[in-house]
Amino acid sequence: MYIENINSPKDIKALDTEQLNILASEIRTGLMNRLSKRGGHVGPNLGFVEATIALHYVFDSPKDKFVFDVSHQCYTHKMLTGRKEAFFDDGQFGGISGYTNPGESEHDFFNVGHTSTSVSLACGLAKARDLKGESGNVIAIIGDGSLSGGEALEGIDFASELESNFIILVNDNDMSIAENHGGLYKNLKALRDSEGKCSCNLFRAMGLDYIYVSEGNDIAELIEAFRKVKDTDHPIAVHINTLKGKGYEPAEANKEDWHWHMPFDPATGKDTFRDGGENYGDMTCDFLMKKMKADKSVVTMVAAVPVCIGFTEDKRKEAGKQFIDVGIAEEHAVAMASGIARNGGKPVFATHSSFFQRTYDQISQDLCINSNPATLLVNTASVYGMHDITHLGIYDIPMMSNIPNLVYLAPASCEEYFAMLDWSIEQDSYPVAIRMPCNGVIHTDMPVDTDYSGINKYRITRQGRDTAIIALGDFYQIGEKLADLITEKTGTAPTLINPRYITGIDEEMLEQLKDGHSVVITLEDGILNGGFGEKIARFYGASDMKVYNYGLKKEFLDRYIVPEVLKANHLTPQQIYNDIF
Amino acid sequence: MYIENINSPKDIKALDTEQLNILASEIRTGLMNRLSKRGGHVGPNLGFVEATIALHYVFDSPKDKFVFDVSHQCYTHKMLTGRKEAFFDDGQFGGISGYTNPGESEHDFFNVGHTSTSVSLACGLAKARDLKGESGNVIAIIGDGSLSGGEALEGIDFASELESNFIILVNDNDMSIAENHGGLYKNLKALRDSEGKCSCNLFRAMGLDYIYVSEGNDIAELIEAFRKVKDTDHPIAVHINTLKGKGYEPAEANKEDWHWHMPFDPATGKDTFRDGGENYGDMTCDFLMKKMKADKSVVTMVAAVPVCIGFTEDKRKEAGKQFIDVGIAEEHAVAMASGIARNGGKPVFATHSSFFQRTYDQISQDLCINSNPATLLVNTASVYGMHDITHLGIYDIPMMSNIPNLVYLAPASCEEYFAMLDWSIEQDSYPVAIRMPCNGVIHTDMPVDTDYSGINKYRITRQGRDTAIIALGDFYQIGEKLADLITEKTGTAPTLINPRYITGIDEEMLEQLKDGHSVVITLEDGILNGGFGEKIARFYGASDMKVYNYGLKKEFLDRYIVPEVLKANHLTPQQIYNDIF
Repeated sequence: MYIENINSPKDIKALDTEQLNILASEIRTGLMNRLSKRGGHVGPNLGFVEATIALHYVFDSPKDKFVFDVSHQCYTHKMLTGRKEAFFDDGQFGGISGYTNPGESEHDFFNVGHTSTSVSLACGLAKARDLKGESGNVIAIIGDGSLSGGEALEGIDFASELESNFIILVNDNDMSIAENHGGLYKNLKALRDSEGKCSCNLFRAMGLDYIYVSEGNDIAELIEAFRKVKDTDHPIAVHINTLKGKGYEPAEANKEDWHWHMPFDPATGKDTFRDGGENYGDMTCDFLMKKMKADKSVVTMVAAVPVCIGFTEDKRKEAGKQFIDVGIAEEHAVAMASGIARNGGKPVFATHSSFFQRTYDQISQDLCINSNPATLLVNTASVYGMHDITHLGIYDIPMMSNIPNLVYLAPASCEEYFAMLDWSIEQDSYPVAIRMPCNGVIHTDMPVDTDYSGINKYRITRQGRDTAIIALGDFYQIGEKLADLITEKTGTAPTLINPRYITGIDEEMLEQLKDGHSVVITLEDGILNGGFGEKIARFYGASDMKVYNYGLKKEFLDRYIVPEVLKANHLTPQQIYNDIF
Repeated sequence: MYIENINSPKDIKALDTEQLNILASEIRTGLMNRLSKRGGHVGPNLGFVEATIALHYVFDSPKDKFVFDVSHQCYTHKMLTGRKEAFFDDGQFGGISGYTNPGESEHDFFNVGHTSTSVSLACGLAKARDLKGESGNVIAIIGDGSLSGGEALEGIDFASELESNFIILVNDNDMSIAENHGGLYKNLKALRDSEGKCSCNLFRAMGLDYIYVSEGNDIAELIEAFRKVKDTDHPIAVHINTLKGKGYEPAEANKEDWHWHMPFDPATGKDTFRDGGENYGDMTCDFLMKKMKADKSVVTMVAAVPVCIGFTEDKRKEAGKQFIDVGIAEEHAVAMASGIARNGGKPVFATHSSFFQRTYDQISQDLCINSNPATLLVNTASVYGMHDITHLGIYDIPMMSNIPNLVYLAPASCEEYFAMLDWSIEQDSYPVAIRMPCNGVIHTDMPVDTDYSGINKYRITRQGRDTAIIALGDFYQIGEKLADLITEKTGTAPTLINPRYITGIDEEMLEQLKDGHSVVITLEDGILNGGFGEKIARFYGASDMKVYNYGLKKEFLDRYIVPEVLKANHLTPQQIYNDIF
């Protein structure tokens, strides 16, 4: 095995092409070992093995600097830079993240997990190099649909201003997570079809020099191309055509399913892990499908993550023109949703909490200033959501709930979620965002409102006394358990409240609580800073009410264990009880 | 005068070309009347007179829908749609905003003031039209440097997916606010130079059909072009070459100065309004220029608004490679700043508070997760800042201060501002944002710290008792006046605190205040929701301390009078005193 002797990039420089090809095969073995047992980004990594080998063969990392976009395709890079054990030794899987991570290696420059950032970050590395009069190549690597993101296009447009060494490696596998969307991908196809010779060329139109490599999984061809551009004195795009999922037949055949994949049996490609049961993705898809069939003006929108609300390929086809995947273009999505709502359509745009960060200004300016009645579905907005530092869903409450005019709702059960969604689609007065539940599909027998136009009216679900618990969204169930515990321990049942509205306070109810209550406890599934509970604390600031806010500390967590984080933040009912009583 | 009889767009349809040209001249008289007396966007409006006339001549607004980007070029549109008095009758200047405004007219579809939004918003109008099976043209108008913004590029990339009527009018005057930056503008030049025939074409590379109009200020030529594309069944870009400032010699000669201009004497072009005295723009420029001369790794960055920190054309030349205008591309700017800082440079990126909204995700992901020591200068972040609904600077505290790892500073004087800026540039541990003072250049005799690495340490500036006033940034001076008033009225001097750090609380000091104080008053120059004071309220939530938070209500203000807003929010010292004592 060659891989056994590769401990840093310099160790591959003595290998010849044949040996490098064997190395590629060994690397795929390592990839499959980790991916099949742990899950991860299958297609992006399998497709980028040869290119990564060729990059490290031609360039001299870390003096030459690679910046990976999204960085979910960096596994081979990790193997070649001293981290191969995390792929071959099952006991060491946990030693690395699924993204580049400067904490792991001097060959990684940024923690990256969102798309479309590599060109701009790399521009910065190059500019600092030039300011300091240093040398070395800077290479931004971008692909998997990231090109359509505004940040990437801004970066590519700016890059030509650098007037010094700068290489953009466009890893074109003709796919985003799902299929590509947007006109520029037609140009990429024209470039592939013409072997890069098509005179209308997006990269040249953005001011860059350009070369094309048709065999993006051929190490020899890649080495030749990279040698050509190494030490270039100007910005150049190197467009390579790779095969997503290369080397694993199921992944080559069904690229969307295998972009990211749960653990699987390599022999059959079948999942070895099954969730089963109800999930909000499929349920949301079914609900929206019914709405769309009943009303041609309802339209479902996503930005390259259709499956987050259950829209698999068959469902997308079924929805037809009433389903829009804008590609990686969240800014466009929210502004377009505002325009659809302005002209009488009923748009529902869904993406992950972490990706709504990419469209703050459009939520504020395009949507909320104009008060257009679009619906935003905020997915994985929870400590129970995604656990990588770059994909956390615990910041959307401070980010979104303080934007004027927005009605941000937090359902406390499955029934309430769909009632809110239905109301939001049918009303025409407010931009509405809904925090999709993320703590399992929890049903309720309690009646839920069908009309949420009584903005900021909280609901008392259990009338008690002395203590009031205001438990928001996914943490409503913690509130129930806490209420039970207080009742059990003190003999007095507290009042339990489902506030439902994140964006405002029910002043009338909070005023009434002063009668018969001396303690208010708030619970929210997100960071406390700038969040929901602080608004309650402000309301009672000058009163005698004692207010205790429970939620998460403001920090970037990474690959955390949910119960540990809950415990560290005193979020178990027993801890809260011990704190206060 | 033809303009006298134009009360709606249909009134121009009977005019012939010669009459339309006379109308254009009359419109310029109206523009000059308003602009010279009130100030406003001179160049964009003067350059777009003929195109607006031709649009309304060919298309049928409001069935055909125009969406103006930034919308600062919409004055002629306002004149032709029933609002001409606001240009010819000085007493009616206040009747309209400087941007499109659905509240004013059925011919305006959105409140717009940020750049790069028109294509996406218009895509939404077109999609809703198609869903409902309606007809009519949708025309997105974009220019003045807006093309480089990520949202615009996302929108243009998506537009080709519409497969129905959609027109993008590219108003190319070869300028942004200052000169254009970015590779795509080289392509626009190549297209102008080749009369649109250059085979490498950004718009075609993005999947659009395309035509070119060389004389963008020739009504007849424009009418012919618009007739060609009217009722098109597919997306098409109409690229017109206009002259920014057309018809007013000083504005044609110095396009940057006349993009937006203060009131002026039309005969000479000289300002009739002079601020005079010190201002933070010039002072910041001088300071950064000294830093850059002393250290080649310091680099000043802006996104198309260089003059917000005093970088006029001569200063930009003087700074050379150490000054970067990325164009309208705030996302790229922040990510690139992170990259520069990662590689040992010392970047300072400045823009307006309202425009930082365009780069939330980059602040969080590219910068703060990576903890790179870049400096962000947040301009006009204040109730004293810009007053249009689309440019408000009162939301950045909730938006930015709740992002982990960021150190957000609020100086309370000129000396403190520059001390913070100096510290931020030289330190290498934190991403730092500084709220530039906006309430005039206020000097202090008090010593200010030079080292701010003691994160979240507040400063007691006057030790008193009973009441503590925590007065943040620009509202520190209100805190001083309130302290004086309380002393005068009660005979007991309160404690006055300059907190300096927006992003955290000084728990030790707040704990100590419990000794000898029963009331804490917070003051902040921004909305209360998600802001600074609520964190103090949370800290004291379960204690006996009475906390009063003062700041602004969460709402979208528009063209407001500062003293009125302060009064409505109980922000005068006398009101606060009356509320509490």
